[in-house]
Amino acid sequence: MDPSYQLLADKLHRQIDARTYLPGDRLPSVRELAKDHGFSLETVLHAFRLLENKGLVEARVRSGFYVREPRLRLIAAPTKTQTIFRAKDVAVSSLRHQTVTLGTSKHVVPLGLSLLGSEVLPVRKLAQTAASAARRYPGETSNQGPPAGIELLRQQLAQRANAWGCFLSPDDFVITCGASEALHLALRAVSQPGDIILVESPTYFGVLEIIQGLGLRVVELATDPVQGIDLGDLENALQRFNRVAACLLVTNCSNPLGYSLSTKTKHNLVRLLAKFGVPLIEDDIFGELHRPETERPKVAKSFDQDGSVILIGSFSKTLAPGLRVGWIVPGKFHDRVLELKSATSLATPSLPQLTVAEFLKFGSFDAHLRRLRKFLAEQVYRFSCAIAENFPASTRISRPSGGFLLWIELEEDFDALELAAEALNRFRIAVAPGNIFSATGERYTNCFRVSCGHAFSPRFAEAIQTVGRLAARSSAPRRMANSR
Amino acid sequence: MDPSYQLLADKLHRQIDARTYLPGDRLPSVRELAKDHGFSLETVLHAFRLLENKGLVEARVRSGFYVREPRLRLIAAPTKTQTIFRAKDVAVSSLRHQTVTLGTSKHVVPLGLSLLGSEVLPVRKLAQTAASAARRYPGETSNQGPPAGIELLRQQLAQRANAWGCFLSPDDFVITCGASEALHLALRAVSQPGDIILVESPTYFGVLEIIQGLGLRVVELATDPVQGIDLGDLENALQRFNRVAACLLVTNCSNPLGYSLSTKTKHNLVRLLAKFGVPLIEDDIFGELHRPETERPKVAKSFDQDGSVILIGSFSKTLAPGLRVGWIVPGKFHDRVLELKSATSLATPSLPQLTVAEFLKFGSFDAHLRRLRKFLAEQVYRFSCAIAENFPASTRISRPSGGFLLWIELEEDFDALELAAEALNRFRIAVAPGNIFSATGERYTNCFRVSCGHAFSPRFAEAIQTVGRLAARSSAPRRMANSR
Repeated sequence: MDPSYQLLADKLHRQIDARTYLPGDRLPSVRELAKDHGFSLETVLHAFRLLENKGLVEARVRSGFYVREPRLRLIAAPTKTQTIFRAKDVAVSSLRHQTVTLGTSKHVVPLGLSLLGSEVLPVRKLAQTAASAARRYPGETSNQGPPAGIELLRQQLAQRANAWGCFLSPDDFVITCGASEALHLALRAVSQPGDIILVESPTYFGVLEIIQGLGLRVVELATDPVQGIDLGDLENALQRFNRVAACLLVTNCSNPLGYSLSTKTKHNLVRLLAKFGVPLIEDDIFGELHRPETERPKVAKSFDQDGSVILIGSFSKTLAPGLRVGWIVPGKFHDRVLELKSATSLATPSLPQLTVAEFLKFGSFDAHLRRLRKFLAEQVYRFSCAIAENFPASTRISRPSGGFLLWIELEEDFDALELAAEALNRFRIAVAPGNIFSATGERYTNCFRVSCGHAFSPRFAEAIQTVGRLAARSSAPRRMANSR
Repeated sequence: MDPSYQLLADKLHRQIDARTYLPGDRLPSVRELAKDHGFSLETVLHAFRLLENKGLVEARVRSGFYVREPRLRLIAAPTKTQTIFRAKDVAVSSLRHQTVTLGTSKHVVPLGLSLLGSEVLPVRKLAQTAASAARRYPGETSNQGPPAGIELLRQQLAQRANAWGCFLSPDDFVITCGASEALHLALRAVSQPGDIILVESPTYFGVLEIIQGLGLRVVELATDPVQGIDLGDLENALQRFNRVAACLLVTNCSNPLGYSLSTKTKHNLVRLLAKFGVPLIEDDIFGELHRPETERPKVAKSFDQDGSVILIGSFSKTLAPGLRVGWIVPGKFHDRVLELKSATSLATPSLPQLTVAEFLKFGSFDAHLRRLRKFLAEQVYRFSCAIAENFPASTRISRPSGGFLLWIELEEDFDALELAAEALNRFRIAVAPGNIFSATGERYTNCFRVSCGHAFSPRFAEAIQTVGRLAARSSAPRRMANSR
């Protein structure tokens, strides 16, 4: 039998077809539908996302779901990707490095890195908090803290973990220099060089970079742009390969595609991996940036029975990337991770940790998050519209379940690398070319990722226009050349 | 022919023997001798150190060198160590980890880690600087900075490098999370797993930990407690082993023995390594903490012709370990190091960097350093005296040329590990047992390191008494048992 979200989606679809709701009409709210028909909020949302993906409805920020004007061009979601059942070394990529380096340059339009603009970060309040933290804790600021991190911050994190579905205590956490260090520690704790890491594909390039640096290999699992990985594929991979050291996934608002695994998939995922004795490294860095109309998605860690789920997060996507404060809940790998942490960097700088701890305690972090979610949903919508308007008709765009990243897929023979290079060199616009999201750099050559972490100003409108023009121009002659 | 410092030392020795200067008399100052006889300051200092090591003279803080009372017991320097011409894997050591973890606990007397006490750090001033940096640069505090680090700080460092004998520019520097990350990046940039790193022995245990983590091997070079490594041994090792990826040394105020390589040795060292095409990783973390009566020692990097010297430093030993601000001048490995940096931790937190930059610019860092050097020299003297008083007569103590570490050598059959464990478990006193300064944990089992980074208060006097009592007690029955 179809799952209940599918049944609900079908019912709503029929209602729309039957002109129960006209184009432009607002559909009942998620809460109303859930209450009236006894569904969970998640089921209703899932149904809406299916309809959205078919182009039948659209989400409007702070408002709800509306029936779409059918005359508006339907933007397709990216195609489902394929699993490649082969363990691959990750190729060194100077492009990945270039993407990171240029991403923080003031002289380029920053569509490349997943960084938030200053206009949406609580810049002044954070500076005040940092100043008062320094004055309040002068000794802690100067002295080297414990390798696990400042206890004040670990307390705050443990309290927040309830919202993720976990019961955790301060001692479960190790504070890190951003999620990058956390990923690095997690991978080192569970693997030996040559081991295989199962990743979703496309994969955040930073993860590939770390995997390459540790001499690990990857198997790239297929993903659906809405559902994420397929557990059948995962099981298949677990059966085929015997040196699988871990499965590493962004379970909520993934990077780059933006899907979130359903609660049920998370549960089954944890069960399946436990059956094979393979740890899950769960990167929840975008978890707080779910869509404003939805609940905070749970983490797979909440289903962890034996400590084999390693949960990772950060404040870089919610508060300030400049603080470089991340964290890891290493589960049964706690001692090993702590050893590696103290051997690599002794301790995380104290002042950024104190700043975050004070902000969490006194800075109305949750109110900030609510504003941030609305802001980001709005930018994602505006960037999506601009891309739809300015790009070739065949362009496919992801509909993220949160976060602020868009995955753009052009026609198959399109060379996104060439586009990225021209955008950067001629127009100082940075986008992240798709191939850096694959292990060998050979896949997703017709895709790129666009970050919507800034307010959609005329500067960004113009940049999208420019990139759209490049996309239109370079796909036209190419097709002509092919037809010769 | 003997080197000139040897000749000068002989002359002064003869003068003392001939009662030109009586016990308690102050010898001519370093500057006077240098001026009067046309020596360099370094030559005179070297001569004084030879005399000091023979127990003929003693340095008194802020004052100069004095003829020693001959009836005072002569404390011998540690014995010269041996080179082991065998490439060794570094053993995992939970002891090293324990040393780091306990080192920052408030409940133990901190003689274990090389950390400075709050009383000597500019805690209030630094907190004020951090607060004003946060308010002055709110955007930079929140936003992710460039992987190479904040330019303001790199500028300050490049200006300071003149005093180390180097001409450097901001672009030569990459800012890191402490010297630990810098060492990690340097080693990764020059080596592949299985490669050999030439290290001085005893070696700072943090370096061994990093080497172990990267799957590298070491060859441990002999050291003299005053002169440091022997270049003959080094050449021998370079000839014998063909997978030498780098030589890693603390060239100034080494850890744990406290020697500084002479300027001439540094020059020859760089030439020798260049001949074999082997990079030098120069850890200058204690370079600013030379003895107050001496000049800032030059770095080997100042003799670098082709960029194969990688220079590393930090503000953890001079300003605040809690900031975790270190740096690396990677020379010809610049691009590789920057790539690894951005792949491992993206960027160093901004606020600690801004705090250091502002402190360097406005905080009278040099005045602070002058006070710090005097303070540390005094503590090293007071801790040394206390150890001499409270430990068995056969105890040997290093006479560091700077920094704030003492290396204590007990009789050969002594078990320092047992002593460290008892001191910790029964008396909550942390010392660093000697064996963690060797690759396999089998050497220096009769040694331990004591940190003198705190004011010698009654708490420390008592701790030294306690450890001395343990040392006396456990060596007595052991010798009796041996004589049976």
